[in-house]
Amino acid sequence: MSAEIKATNITWHEGHVTREERGKLLKQQGATLWFTGLSGSGKSTIAFTLEHALVQNGYQAYVLDGDNIRHGLNKNLGFSAADREENIRRIGEVAKLFADAGILTMTSFISPYRKDRDLVRALHVEGKLPFIEIHVNTPLETCEQRDPKGLYKKARAGQLKGFTGIDDPYEAPLNPELTIDATTTSPQQAAVLLVQYLESQGILR
Amino acid sequence: MSAEIKATNITWHEGHVTREERGKLLKQQGATLWFTGLSGSGKSTIAFTLEHALVQNGYQAYVLDGDNIRHGLNKNLGFSAADREENIRRIGEVAKLFADAGILTMTSFISPYRKDRDLVRALHVEGKLPFIEIHVNTPLETCEQRDPKGLYKKARAGQLKGFTGIDDPYEAPLNPELTIDATTTSPQQAAVLLVQYLESQGILR
Repeated sequence: MSAEIKATNITWHEGHVTREERGKLLKQQGATLWFTGLSGSGKSTIAFTLEHALVQNGYQAYVLDGDNIRHGLNKNLGFSAADREENIRRIGEVAKLFADAGILTMTSFISPYRKDRDLVRALHVEGKLPFIEIHVNTPLETCEQRDPKGLYKKARAGQLKGFTGIDDPYEAPLNPELTIDATTTSPQQAAVLLVQYLESQGILR
Repeated sequence: MSAEIKATNITWHEGHVTREERGKLLKQQGATLWFTGLSGSGKSTIAFTLEHALVQNGYQAYVLDGDNIRHGLNKNLGFSAADREENIRRIGEVAKLFADAGILTMTSFISPYRKDRDLVRALHVEGKLPFIEIHVNTPLETCEQRDPKGLYKKARAGQLKGFTGIDDPYEAPLNPELTIDATTTSPQQAAVLLVQYLESQGILR
């Protein structure tokens, strides 16, 4: 395909490719799917399951999570109130850039505070980009039983301070676009629900 | 195409889609094309011309520039030495995330200090992602004659302090992957050179 890019086909442009042009070529619209929920609720498993399903079907999708954010962009942030707020703000701005580039962008962070998530929503509304808040509302008891990273155990033992659900609040979304209970919905079922939602909104074509 | 995504086709995944899988589907490899040069040197015009050429040919490309970074991710940074360094660090980390997502990512910032650019290069090397430094080495005299934003005039009048090329140094890359003189190379010609380079490296297939 690249052999088609010849000098004669290249014209001078001063600004970005428009979203409409990108959308036509990609058969999708950029959007942020913001997963929020307790540690161990299943956010990442759902996000990765959806990412694979989308990419295998020719769509552009990418997951922003602790692994690629905390050790990179946000490695100079700690866990103070101000740093937690800045952590979510930066993730929101990066998700917005990805969405502007036409990517279906999934973020998988506890993001416990309503005000931080609402700020990210406002950024997207301002940028005319879809923001889809997905509450993975698996009950604390289930998350604590699963405890995949042993964090609840540490928090209960007092070795981790300010742990969401134990000694720091989780503020559930008041009006999320979708709510998923990962105790009764498998990651596959959740991914199917999400694909149907994206189709219903014209985000996937 | 999305009608193909059915419950039976979706399998449970715990981690990211691999770069190999993405590369096969996208017919391209993610990479960062880092444009550096004086204000008015032509970085953005080349980057946008290349972005349009790539997207129109079915490739995924996106430009990070002052417009989408300074008012968003980096709006809480000023122009102190520490903030300038953090500005480039964050842009480098975001470019790395885009490249990891398989996107041909162009950055258009003066980025005058060698140490800051080398830090971004190191991030990419560590992440096994191509980093292509492109020096747009239009001479200061030409940039100042063009002065598209009237910034040189302000700097000469002392209304702008620490302006690169006037009262702050520009440290040219010692070993850039490509050098473009925008006084003798049109944006179209530059875009063709860059496409040829990307093909020669197997980044475009």
